[in-house]
Amino acid sequence: MTIVIRLQQTATDAQRSEVVERTSRTGVVPRVHTPTMVSAPGSLDAVKAALADLDQVAEVAKLSADYPQAAKAARDGGSMVKLGEALIGSEEFTVIAGPCSVETQSQLSKTARAVQQAGAHALRGGVFKPRTSPYAFQGLGRAGLDLAQVAREETGLPFVTEVVDVRDVEILAENVDMLQIGARNMQNYALLREVGATRIPVLLKRGLAATIDETLMAAEYLLDGGNSQVVLCERGIRAFESGYRFALDLTAVTVFRERTHLPVIVDPSHAAGATDRVIPLALAAAACGADGIIVESHCDPASALCDGKQALPVEDLPELMQRLRFAATAGGKRLSAPAGRPGWQHARLAV
Amino acid sequence: MTIVIRLQQTATDAQRSEVVERTSRTGVVPRVHTPTMVSAPGSLDAVKAALADLDQVAEVAKLSADYPQAAKAARDGGSMVKLGEALIGSEEFTVIAGPCSVETQSQLSKTARAVQQAGAHALRGGVFKPRTSPYAFQGLGRAGLDLAQVAREETGLPFVTEVVDVRDVEILAENVDMLQIGARNMQNYALLREVGATRIPVLLKRGLAATIDETLMAAEYLLDGGNSQVVLCERGIRAFESGYRFALDLTAVTVFRERTHLPVIVDPSHAAGATDRVIPLALAAAACGADGIIVESHCDPASALCDGKQALPVEDLPELMQRLRFAATAGGKRLSAPAGRPGWQHARLAV
Amino acid sequence: MTIVIRLQQTATDAQRSEVVERTSRTGVVPRVHTPTMVSAPGSLDAVKAALADLDQVAEVAKLSADYPQAAKAARDGGSMVKLGEALIGSEEFTVIAGPCSVETQSQLSKTARAVQQAGAHALRGGVFKPRTSPYAFQGLGRAGLDLAQVAREETGLPFVTEVVDVRDVEILAENVDMLQIGARNMQNYALLREVGATRIPVLLKRGLAATIDETLMAAEYLLDGGNSQVVLCERGIRAFESGYRFALDLTAVTVFRERTHLPVIVDPSHAAGATDRVIPLALAAAACGADGIIVESHCDPASALCDGKQALPVEDLPELMQRLRFAATAGGKRLSAPAGRPGWQHARLAV
Amino acid sequence: MTIVIRLQQTATDAQRSEVVERTSRTGVVPRVHTPTMVSAPGSLDAVKAALADLDQVAEVAKLSADYPQAAKAARDGGSMVKLGEALIGSEEFTVIAGPCSVETQSQLSKTARAVQQAGAHALRGGVFKPRTSPYAFQGLGRAGLDLAQVAREETGLPFVTEVVDVRDVEILAENVDMLQIGARNMQNYALLREVGATRIPVLLKRGLAATIDETLMAAEYLLDGGNSQVVLCERGIRAFESGYRFALDLTAVTVFRERTHLPVIVDPSHAAGATDRVIPLALAAAACGADGIIVESHCDPASALCDGKQALPVEDLPELMQRLRFAATAGGKRLSAPAGRPGWQHARLAV
Repeated sequence: MTIVIRLQQTATDAQRSEVVERTSRTGVVPRVHTPTMVSAPGSLDAVKAALADLDQVAEVAKLSADYPQAAKAARDGGSMVKLGEALIGSEEFTVIAGPCSVETQSQLSKTARAVQQAGAHALRGGVFKPRTSPYAFQGLGRAGLDLAQVAREETGLPFVTEVVDVRDVEILAENVDMLQIGARNMQNYALLREVGATRIPVLLKRGLAATIDETLMAAEYLLDGGNSQVVLCERGIRAFESGYRFALDLTAVTVFRERTHLPVIVDPSHAAGATDRVIPLALAAAACGADGIIVESHCDPASALCDGKQALPVEDLPELMQRLRFAATAGGKRLSAPAGRPGWQHARLAV
Repeated sequence: MTIVIRLQQTATDAQRSEVVERTSRTGVVPRVHTPTMVSAPGSLDAVKAALADLDQVAEVAKLSADYPQAAKAARDGGSMVKLGEALIGSEEFTVIAGPCSVETQSQLSKTARAVQQAGAHALRGGVFKPRTSPYAFQGLGRAGLDLAQVAREETGLPFVTEVVDVRDVEILAENVDMLQIGARNMQNYALLREVGATRIPVLLKRGLAATIDETLMAAEYLLDGGNSQVVLCERGIRAFESGYRFALDLTAVTVFRERTHLPVIVDPSHAAGATDRVIPLALAAAACGADGIIVESHCDPASALCDGKQALPVEDLPELMQRLRFAATAGGKRLSAPAGRPGWQHARLAV
Repeated sequence: MTIVIRLQQTATDAQRSEVVERTSRTGVVPRVHTPTMVSAPGSLDAVKAALADLDQVAEVAKLSADYPQAAKAARDGGSMVKLGEALIGSEEFTVIAGPCSVETQSQLSKTARAVQQAGAHALRGGVFKPRTSPYAFQGLGRAGLDLAQVAREETGLPFVTEVVDVRDVEILAENVDMLQIGARNMQNYALLREVGATRIPVLLKRGLAATIDETLMAAEYLLDGGNSQVVLCERGIRAFESGYRFALDLTAVTVFRERTHLPVIVDPSHAAGATDRVIPLALAAAACGADGIIVESHCDPASALCDGKQALPVEDLPELMQRLRFAATAGGKRLSAPAGRPGWQHARLAV
Repeated sequence: MTIVIRLQQTATDAQRSEVVERTSRTGVVPRVHTPTMVSAPGSLDAVKAALADLDQVAEVAKLSADYPQAAKAARDGGSMVKLGEALIGSEEFTVIAGPCSVETQSQLSKTARAVQQAGAHALRGGVFKPRTSPYAFQGLGRAGLDLAQVAREETGLPFVTEVVDVRDVEILAENVDMLQIGARNMQNYALLREVGATRIPVLLKRGLAATIDETLMAAEYLLDGGNSQVVLCERGIRAFESGYRFALDLTAVTVFRERTHLPVIVDPSHAAGATDRVIPLALAAAACGADGIIVESHCDPASALCDGKQALPVEDLPELMQRLRFAATAGGKRLSAPAGRPGWQHARLAV
């Protein structure tokens, strides 16, 4: 059983240390989560007895839920996370697009301009790539950040990239606008703790065989570290079918809505595994009420170093955006026209 | 290896019998699929030799595909299946709604009227229910058909119901408008053969762990029997998550589009397992390009004998239909206004 | 909620009819399971009130469990099912072997003799084959039964075969020793009811995506029909891995042990999908405590019309049996020497 | 496409640098794997042309396999990994046992002594615990290593522990005998690279939804770093069944045998999720030919801080070991008697 000890807001460091020490003496190892919250495995009665006479202790109780900070009950209404001009979780549907990997300045800038002109809100691009094979292209590494910096300045788009190593968190947090934790690292708790200690927006992808509650407990690691800028991302689960890469799990999106206040976006690209399936799945995500999508797009998919088969050619972005306006409307969101294209209004019923 | 023997269109019964007999003599068991098609396991050379001098033989070849009749290449454009006034597979998005089970005349008629007034195209309702437990309500059986007949006449809606026993095929085919083969019977080949011998429209649900190709081979049983009125239905696959019943597999819908000319609709209800998730998933299905949906709806979900938790109250059907207009537009279909409500136009871009 | 009404042992048919009729008047559809058991969906209070003054009613209660007759609590100790000389579920480990399909007399007889000489207990062989493709070999049908009859007489082995159509139950029940209900028909309830009405031993295979409890509820259909000769069979579940056909789920075998008194055997062949993997998986099944195995074996795998890739050559049966003696001992069973080979004793610790 | 460039054994650092630089000029990013192996994405012709006149280049070729170093073809016979006195992959079956977590000196020492007395070969125990919830006990951390050191000295058993953070690799490599990479970190490539750079034995657990080939490519990261002391571990895959934690995938063990020379052991505890299922699954693993098991055992499961429900009480270890002797014999291995118990011989046929 996990015991949660909540301290008075006025508790001093010394007072907290005393709580920790007394709790330890019951034979367990306490953990300080925030200045006013300590947890420990163990017996409720034993811990209560050990702390009985301490004024700085506000409450000693069993953990009330698996993810008390991520749970829907933790706040009124949904959270919103700011990414550049976009507010993920608001009424506006958010679109993040860009290449799987940052390859060259020309590739990234060309793609970024198309993303910006189509009216999408942010640019994605991997510089550190987690690859199944050690012989596959592993990304440009830190050198890729310089290319991204140019693209950000050229387009004004915020930049989203994946972090795969605790030792890269600091430099990435200083140079990008949102950190992505990929599906394969969703339960890399050392990484979650390190990113939770920053204050940069985080895109947490659901693991390919993670349950909804496991995903929310992974988010809880981030929240527990003090980082409240967390966006969840459904990207497909591993299934028995070999005709596609993953089964995009939109049923899970509807359940996330019931269980958490965190925004939820969808990655239609990795499930699809083929370009022609990407727009239909993106539309499905918008229609079922997701807060946005993150989609792989490339100025020249045939030459992409990674995942070119599923990259949407930038020429298809306008069609995607136009159709998304209908799907997002169905889903209860809106997708506004890009700046400078005032005629491109919100889809609505033409009665 | 499977050998396919195609006969001349002019081949007589006696000529076909000779083909069968000669093929048997190579030590295999031939199967007559249609008057001009015979198949057999075995060696191509041996069968060719056995039939070499027969004029009625047009071709002896290896089976060219796992599902030659269901494959996209088998015809130009997609198939359409007529169900009452609706044409499933056309540009119009089709909505089938109704209770899980036919329970009483009042329940069915009340629900049917709401379905009709909301502008849906057909009524569903189970009379023979395949139930996991032998102690659960198993449907009214043939008695339910009388109730259905009344509801059909009252509303003009065609009626769709499930068949679970080869011995019921005949009476159902005479009394309803479309036969559903459920997920649990998708590989009940005796039933597929029997329904394939009728000429009534069939709704073939994908098994909960059936691959895309297995589903198409099940459809091939129907087509091979001569019944070309086949509609596929994605209804969710079994996954590891316990927060919902099934993972609605819309990625598969995009792959079905690539592999078959058959129409594909989606059942959002069984995956959802909870009323609040049904509309989002129905919208997702429409947005990703499905040809229609089949959704459970009930005039009084709390009193339903089966699956009440996931039944959409009939009061919510108008909202579903209105939002579907946007989602279907995104998906490339349209959903017309119900008769008598001309103001309720097709959703379109309001530029 | 399901209500179970138990009648006095002395209840007459007329008294039972009165119970059914009164229960119907509460607005539900009762079902007679056995002469002394009736069930109905509905309200406990309403049904109790309706039957309050009837002496023939012994008890009106909520259904106590999902599978009251299959549950471990239903009897002291495990059930045993007699198959020829073997007693499945006893301390002796049972081995059923034979071809996927009955093909020719020579093939079946040759294989049967090898099976018998290796010391296995029963012969398997399909005459009606459920095949994914309508163009694949579908079995010899009833003609295969004649071949089987010869092999039974030649070897004295009991014969196990699959039933796939309700219309074949009667003839099969008269001509074979055990009916197999295959994985694809595990939830073909019409078939379960029909086989449940016979008194022939049944081998019920777990569906490839059936949960443990769903499997036990399928068994409950058989038991509820009065057929208590039920053996369960684990044969692999559908998983995401493409390197084999199915994931043999031995963890489920350990859970079946906890939940039911029915014997459980394992089919290692279909999971394996390749000959070299069959013996290791058969040994694993025996070691984990299964009551037996059913394994595909063929006198000439290369020429098999079905599943030849996974058929164990009959030459390998002696090695299988010898190694099984160790594995079964580990698993708490024993595997005796075949008749006429007294030196081939039970494996035991040589201290 | 991945291009592999192999250099002459005599190539100098400067010569390798020239290869890297010339390859880069074709527009790709080369990666140095070993002193004589460089890889790069890109065009075979372009890279060949760029390196055509360099004597230090022995071969330029497409990557011949997904995991050339882990593949069975990479060496004659199976690899063996030394762990204390045990040689994993030899004819002797290896047993690693111990608590989920190191908790106290008394708990660890008591358990270790029981493990040693039962004749097992190594002690397991977590000091850094990857936990689904941030509020669960996360292990004693480095303090746990001191307790482990005492237990090692008391029993002579080698100690196996999990590494979850790249920053802990060095200290763990200096203080323990084998590093475990857990299922959740199987595709944490930063960690794989860091552990691949050490020369300490590694136990690489298959991810809960990792395919066989993905697992082997994860192993390839370790091998590619120069660490050849790699043991694979099957520990159950995520399935749809809620009656247990994971489906132990012994079918995969048989396929690993076909595809790799690396030893494969099995963890029966995490799949089981309940004590009574552990011995049957351990026996199944041995019978199907695994090289060993790693099993959770505790001197007082009821008080365990982690996974107590699945911990085998140390009192049950002798029964496990005795039955394993039979199962391992069936599987083609042997399990010798513990030192000082010469009467406890190898199981063999008592004819």
